[in-house]
Amino acid sequence: MVLVDSLIISSSLIGLVAAFYQFTVIQKISLTPAGGLEQKLKDDAPEKLVPEIYEKIMNGAKQFLRVEYMICTAFCIVFSVVIYLLVAWGTKSGTQGLLTASAFLTGAFTSMLCGFLGMMIATYSNARTTLACANSGFTLGFNTAFRGGAVMGYALCSLGVLVLWILLTVFRKVYPHVEDWEILFDCAAGYGLGGSTVAMFGRVGGGIYTKAADVGADLVGKVVAGLDEDDPNNPATIADNVGDNVGDIAGMGADLFGSFAESTCAALVIAAAAVEGSKDTLFEAGWNAMLFPVSISAAGVVICILCGIYATNIRPVKEEKDIEWVLKLQLVLTAIIMLPVIYLLALHLLPAEFRLEGVRLDEHGYPAKIHGSPFKCFICATMGCLGGMIIGLVTEYFTSHSYVPTRELASACKFGTAVNIIQGLALGYKSCIIPVFVLASAIFVSFQLCDLYGIALAALGMLATLACGLTIDGFGPISDNAGGIAEMALFNPEVRRRTDALDAAGNTTAAIGKGFAIGSAALVSLALYGAFVIRLRVKTGVNILEPTTFSFLIIGCMIPYWFAALTMKSVGKAAGEMVMEVKRQFSLKDSKGKTLLDGSTELKPDSIRCIQISTEASLKEMVAPACLVILSPLLAGTFFGVQAVFGLLTGSLGSSVQLAISMSNSGGAWDNCKKYIKNGFSDDPELRYTKNPKTPEEIAAAPKAKEAHDAAVQGDTVGDPFKDTSGPALNIVMKLQAIVSLVFAAYFHAIADGKGLVGGFMTGLAD
Amino acid sequence: MVLVDSLIISSSLIGLVAAFYQFTVIQKISLTPAGGLEQKLKDDAPEKLVPEIYEKIMNGAKQFLRVEYMICTAFCIVFSVVIYLLVAWGTKSGTQGLLTASAFLTGAFTSMLCGFLGMMIATYSNARTTLACANSGFTLGFNTAFRGGAVMGYALCSLGVLVLWILLTVFRKVYPHVEDWEILFDCAAGYGLGGSTVAMFGRVGGGIYTKAADVGADLVGKVVAGLDEDDPNNPATIADNVGDNVGDIAGMGADLFGSFAESTCAALVIAAAAVEGSKDTLFEAGWNAMLFPVSISAAGVVICILCGIYATNIRPVKEEKDIEWVLKLQLVLTAIIMLPVIYLLALHLLPAEFRLEGVRLDEHGYPAKIHGSPFKCFICATMGCLGGMIIGLVTEYFTSHSYVPTRELASACKFGTAVNIIQGLALGYKSCIIPVFVLASAIFVSFQLCDLYGIALAALGMLATLACGLTIDGFGPISDNAGGIAEMALFNPEVRRRTDALDAAGNTTAAIGKGFAIGSAALVSLALYGAFVIRLRVKTGVNILEPTTFSFLIIGCMIPYWFAALTMKSVGKAAGEMVMEVKRQFSLKDSKGKTLLDGSTELKPDSIRCIQISTEASLKEMVAPACLVILSPLLAGTFFGVQAVFGLLTGSLGSSVQLAISMSNSGGAWDNCKKYIKNGFSDDPELRYTKNPKTPEEIAAAPKAKEAHDAAVQGDTVGDPFKDTSGPALNIVMKLQAIVSLVFAAYFHAIADGKGLVGGFMTGLAD
Repeated sequence: MVLVDSLIISSSLIGLVAAFYQFTVIQKISLTPAGGLEQKLKDDAPEKLVPEIYEKIMNGAKQFLRVEYMICTAFCIVFSVVIYLLVAWGTKSGTQGLLTASAFLTGAFTSMLCGFLGMMIATYSNARTTLACANSGFTLGFNTAFRGGAVMGYALCSLGVLVLWILLTVFRKVYPHVEDWEILFDCAAGYGLGGSTVAMFGRVGGGIYTKAADVGADLVGKVVAGLDEDDPNNPATIADNVGDNVGDIAGMGADLFGSFAESTCAALVIAAAAVEGSKDTLFEAGWNAMLFPVSISAAGVVICILCGIYATNIRPVKEEKDIEWVLKLQLVLTAIIMLPVIYLLALHLLPAEFRLEGVRLDEHGYPAKIHGSPFKCFICATMGCLGGMIIGLVTEYFTSHSYVPTRELASACKFGTAVNIIQGLALGYKSCIIPVFVLASAIFVSFQLCDLYGIALAALGMLATLACGLTIDGFGPISDNAGGIAEMALFNPEVRRRTDALDAAGNTTAAIGKGFAIGSAALVSLALYGAFVIRLRVKTGVNILEPTTFSFLIIGCMIPYWFAALTMKSVGKAAGEMVMEVKRQFSLKDSKGKTLLDGSTELKPDSIRCIQISTEASLKEMVAPACLVILSPLLAGTFFGVQAVFGLLTGSLGSSVQLAISMSNSGGAWDNCKKYIKNGFSDDPELRYTKNPKTPEEIAAAPKAKEAHDAAVQGDTVGDPFKDTSGPALNIVMKLQAIVSLVFAAYFHAIADGKGLVGGFMTGLAD
Repeated sequence: MVLVDSLIISSSLIGLVAAFYQFTVIQKISLTPAGGLEQKLKDDAPEKLVPEIYEKIMNGAKQFLRVEYMICTAFCIVFSVVIYLLVAWGTKSGTQGLLTASAFLTGAFTSMLCGFLGMMIATYSNARTTLACANSGFTLGFNTAFRGGAVMGYALCSLGVLVLWILLTVFRKVYPHVEDWEILFDCAAGYGLGGSTVAMFGRVGGGIYTKAADVGADLVGKVVAGLDEDDPNNPATIADNVGDNVGDIAGMGADLFGSFAESTCAALVIAAAAVEGSKDTLFEAGWNAMLFPVSISAAGVVICILCGIYATNIRPVKEEKDIEWVLKLQLVLTAIIMLPVIYLLALHLLPAEFRLEGVRLDEHGYPAKIHGSPFKCFICATMGCLGGMIIGLVTEYFTSHSYVPTRELASACKFGTAVNIIQGLALGYKSCIIPVFVLASAIFVSFQLCDLYGIALAALGMLATLACGLTIDGFGPISDNAGGIAEMALFNPEVRRRTDALDAAGNTTAAIGKGFAIGSAALVSLALYGAFVIRLRVKTGVNILEPTTFSFLIIGCMIPYWFAALTMKSVGKAAGEMVMEVKRQFSLKDSKGKTLLDGSTELKPDSIRCIQISTEASLKEMVAPACLVILSPLLAGTFFGVQAVFGLLTGSLGSSVQLAISMSNSGGAWDNCKKYIKNGFSDDPELRYTKNPKTPEEIAAAPKAKEAHDAAVQGDTVGDPFKDTSGPALNIVMKLQAIVSLVFAAYFHAIADGKGLVGGFMTGLAD
C-alpha cells in the first residue's frame, strides 16, 4: 500500500470515529428527564412538550426524505441505464459503460446516505440544543449545536473520500495498467455526476419545500393573523422547521458533497490525460501523484477535527459575544493550517516537475505545453483557499446588519416596500462585483500556472476545509430549529434569547458558507468544462465565434433564468397552497364557536396536512428544473454537437455565477434587514420596531416603525426563494451541466464526429 | 454619381420633407383658440389652462436637455481628443486619428440633434393631442400623436443616413483608392461610437430622470396622500410628464439611432476587410456593393412613410378599438413590404458572388472562406426582420394584460406585495426563453450563411423599419403626456378616456418596440465584436479557454449587474429626494392654515423645484455608469490585451441580453397588471378596484380589491426603474463596449503586440 492510500484511509477513518464520538456526546442529553424528574415537572412544563414537537419534526423530515429519495432512486436507476447505454455506445466498450454507471450509482447513494445522516443528526440535535440552552448556559447549547453540525461535516467528508477511494481501487483492479488509467478516471467521473444529480434534487426539492412552508407560514401568520414567528398556533410552523433541516442541511450537504466529488473527478481526468510526446506526466509518476487531489480533502478532515476540539473543549463559548467569534475563528484557523499541509502533501506526492495537457493555445495556435511543479500546485490551491475566504467575508459584509449595506437597506424601508425591494435588488447586483473579481483573479493565476489542473486544485483548495464549513452550515439550522422548539414549547423568553443568539451567529457564518459554495461551484464547473474539452482531445481551443458555439452561448446564459423562473414560480404556487390550507384551518370553528386564533382548546393545528402539502408540492415541482439542467447539454450535444455544448457551458457558467451571488445576497440582506428592524438594533427610533412602545420617543415613532417593519417583512418574503431556493440551486445548475457533458463526452464525440445530428446532416448535404 | 448615392440622397430627402410636412399638419392645431373664441371661454375652461401646462413641460424638457447636452458635449470633446491621440498612436497615422475623432463628433452631434428635435416635436404635439381629443374625435387625436411620432421617426432616420453618407463621401476624398477603403471604414466606425456615447447619456440620464420623478410622484402622491396619477396638486406631476419625453423619446431615439449607426458601421468594416488571396471581395466590387447596408436603411424610410399615409389618411382610426390594430398593422406592413425591397436592393447592388473574411475556423483550424451571394444576404436580413417581429410579439404576450401571464400576475396580487414581486420576477426570467431562442436561431443562420457580415445584415434587417418603430415609440409618450395634460387642466373624464385609449395602445406597441431594441442591440453587439476580431486580423479564432479570456468572461458577465446596481440605486436615491421635496410642499400651510392637499387657494405646487431635483440627480448620477461602460474595455485592453477584451465582450453580451429582457418585461408586466386591476378589467371582483363600489358584490369585494390594488401599485413602482432605467440602458452597455473596442482596436494591438501592459510585462519576465 502506498503513502497516499494509507493517508486517505486513516484520515477518513479518523473522521468517522470523530463523528461517532460527537454523536455519543450529544446522546447524553436526554429528551425525557431522567431519575424520576419527570414526575416532578408540572403538566404544562415546556420540557414535557419538547418530545412531542421533536417527534413531529423528525417524522416530517423522515417522511419527506423517504419520498424524495424514492423519487431520486427511481430517477438514478433509469439514468444509470441511460449512462450505461450511451457511454458504452460512445466508447464502444461495455466495461466502460458499466463502470461509469456503477460509479454514478455509488456517488448518488453516497450522497443520499450523507444527506440522510445529516438530516437525522440535525433533527436529533435540535431539541437537545433547546434543552441544553434551557438547563445550562451558552456553553452546552453552543456545543450541542456545534457537535450536531460536526457529525454531519465529518461523516460526509470522510464517507465522500473513503467511498471514492474504494471505487478507484476497485476500478484499478479492472484497469491495472498505467496506460489505461485515462479510461479508469473517465469512468470515475460518474461518481461526481451521481453526487451532483442527487444534489440537484436535494437543493431544488428541499429549497421549494422549505420556502413554501416559510413563505406560507409568514404570509398568513405574520401578515394576516399578526402571529409571531414559530407561533404554536400556526399549523405551518412545524413544516417550516422541517424545511430548515430539509433545505439547509440535506440540500447544502448534498451540494457541497457534489462540489467535492466533481472537483476531485475533474482533477483526476485532467491529470490522467496523455500529453503528446511527453513521458513525465502525472500518471506516469504513479498512484501517489494521481491521488494528490484526494489527499487534500482527506487531510482537510483531520485538520477540521483538530480545530473543532479547540472550539468545543479548549476555548469553549462562555457568553453571547463569543459565539460568532469562535465560529469565524474556526473558518480562518482551518484555512491557515491547511495551507502548509497542502504544500507538504504536494512536495511528497507530486514529482518535482511534470507535464500537463493544456487547453490554452500557444502563440502558434497549438495546445500549449504546461509545466507543473509542487510549488505551482500549492499556489493554485492557495488561490482557492484564500479566494473562498474573501468571497465569504464579502458575502457577510453585504448581508450582515452589522455593516453599512444592510443598514442602508433598513433605512430604505422607511420609504415603503417598493423602495426596499429596489434597493435590495441593487444591493444583490452590487455584491457580485468583488466576488467576481476575486474569482477572476483565482482563475487567472491558477490557469496561468497549471492550466485547468490548476483550476481543479483551486476548487479543492476552496473545499479543503469543507468539514468545518459543513459543521457551521449545520450549526445554523440546528440553532434555528432549537429556537422554534423553544417558542412552540412555550419556554421562557430567556431560552429563546439564547437560541436566537446561537441562530444569529449561525446566520452570519452561513452567509460565508454560501459564498464558499458559489465560489467553489464556479471553479468546479470550469475545471469540469476543461476536463470535457481535454477528454475530447480538441486541439484548436474553443473558438467562441463559431455559429453554433455563439448561438448556444446565449442560450446557456439564458438557462439559469429559465431555471430561476421555474423554481420561483414553484415556490409561489406551493406557498399559495399552504396559505389556503392555513386560512382554512384558521376559519374552522369548534363547538363553542371559537377558532384556533381565538384560543380554542378543542382545535389543534393540523401540522401534518401542512407537511404533506409542502412535501407533495416540492417533489412534484422539482422534476422540471432538474430535467432542464440535465437534458440541456444532452440535447445540445446530440443535435448540434460538441461546439454547442461548449457554448452552453460557457454561457451557463458565466450567467449562473452572477445570478447565484446576487440572489443569495439580496435574500440574505432582506432577511437581516428585517431582523435589524424587528429586534430594535437601530439608533433611529423609526427603524426600531417594538410591539409595546414605552418611551415617548418610541410611541411617537411607533406608526412609522411599524410601516418600516412591514416593508422589511415583505422584502424578507421576496428574499426567501431568492436565498434558499433559486440562488443556491444555481450552483448546481452550472456544475451539473458540466459533469453531464464530461461523462457523455465519448457519446457526443461518437455522433457524426462530434458534430451532432444536425451538423452531421448539414455536412452530408454539403458533400 | 452611382446608383446607391442617388438612392440614399433621395430617400433621406424624402424623409426630411415628409417629417416637415407632418410637422406643418400638427402646427394647424392652435393652443390659443383663434377668432376671438378665447374671450368666449369661461375663465376656468380647461382650454385656458393648457398653454400654461404646455409651457411648463416644454421649459422643463428644454432645461434638462440643455444641461444634459452641455455635459454630453464636454464629455464628447474630451473623449474625441482621447480618440485622436490613441487612434493616431495605434495606427501611427495622424489622419486616421483625426478622421475617427471627427466621425465620432459627427455621430455624437447628429444623435444630439435628433434627440433635441424628437423632444421638441413630442412636447409640441402632446398639448395639441389633448386639444384634438377634446375638440374632435379619435381620428384627429390619434393622427396628431401619430404625426408627432412620425416627425421624430422620419427625421431621425433620414438625418442618420444622410449624415453618414456625407461623412463617407468626404472620407472618400481623403482615401480615394479602393485599397485604402479598409482604413476609410475603420475611421467611419467613430460615427457609431458617437451615436452610442450620446445614447448612453440619454438613456441613463433620461432613465434616472423619468423614474425619479415617477417613483417620487407615485410614492407620495398615490400611496401616502391618496392622489390620482397626474393630480395637479402633486408638484412632481410636471416632472413626471417631462420625464416621459426625456426618457422615452430622447433616450429611446438615441438608443435606436446608435443601433442603426453601429450596425451599419459593423457591416462596412467587415465588408471592407481584405480576404487573403481573393480578388472577388465586396470592396473590389465597388461603392454600390459597399453601401448596400446603408441602402437598406434609406429604403426603409420611404417604405415607412408610405405605410404611414395608410394609417393617417387611407384607413384612419375611427373608434377606440381601431387604434391598437392600426399601430400593429404598421409594424407588420412595413416589415412585409421591406423584405422584397431588400431582395431587390441586394440583387442590384451586390455582385452575384463574393468572398468575405470570416472569423469562424474551418476543419483544419484556419479561417473559413465565406462565399456570399445576394440571396444569402437577403436571408440574413430576413432573419433579423422576422426575428424582431417575433421577439416583439413575445414581449407583448408577456407584458400585455390581454394575455395569461400578466393576468396570472394580477391574481398573485391577492396574496400581497411579496407574492406579486416574486411572480413578477419569475415572469421576467421566463420571458427570456423564446426571445433568446429566436436570437440564437437568427445568429445561427446568418452566421452560417455570411459569417459576421450576415449578423450585421440581420441587425440592419431588424432595424430596417426603424422609422415606423420610432413613430410608434413616440406615439406612446405623446399620448401619455396628452392624458397628463387633460388631467391637470381638469378636462372632463371623456377626454381623459380618449387619451387613455391612445396611451394604452401605445403602451402595447411600445413593448414591441422594446423587444426590437433589445434584439437588435444583441445582433449589433455581436457584429461589432466580430468586426473588432476581423480588424485585429486574428486568424486563430477566439479561444475562450485562455486564462485571460475566461477571467474576463466572468467579469464581462458581471458588468451588466454592476451597471444595473448603479442605475437602480440612483433612481432610489433621486426618488427619495423627490419624496422629501413633495412631502415638504405638502406640509406647508398658508395664512388660513390650509395645505396644498386641503385645497389651499394661496399655495401653488412648485413644480420647478421638482424638475430641478430630477435634473440635477439624473445628471450627477449618469456619469458613473457611463464611465463604467466606456472605461471597462479600454482598461481591459490596455492592461490585459485583446484577449481580455474578447472575454469582456462575450460575457457582457450574453449577460446583458438576459438581464435587459427580464427587467423590461417584469417591469412592463407589473405596470399592466396594475392597470388591469385599477381599470377594473377583471371578471374577478376581488381584482376589480373601484373607488366607489356600487353593486353588493363590489362592496363585499372592495377591501380585498383594495389590497390587491395596493400590491399591484408596489409592483409597478419596483418595475419602474426596471423597465425604464436599467433594462433599456443595458442595450447600450453591450453595444457601447463593443464599439469602443472596435474603434480602439489599433490602439490595443499596438500595446505589447495586443498583450496589454501586464501581458507584455509577463512576457518580458519569461524571456
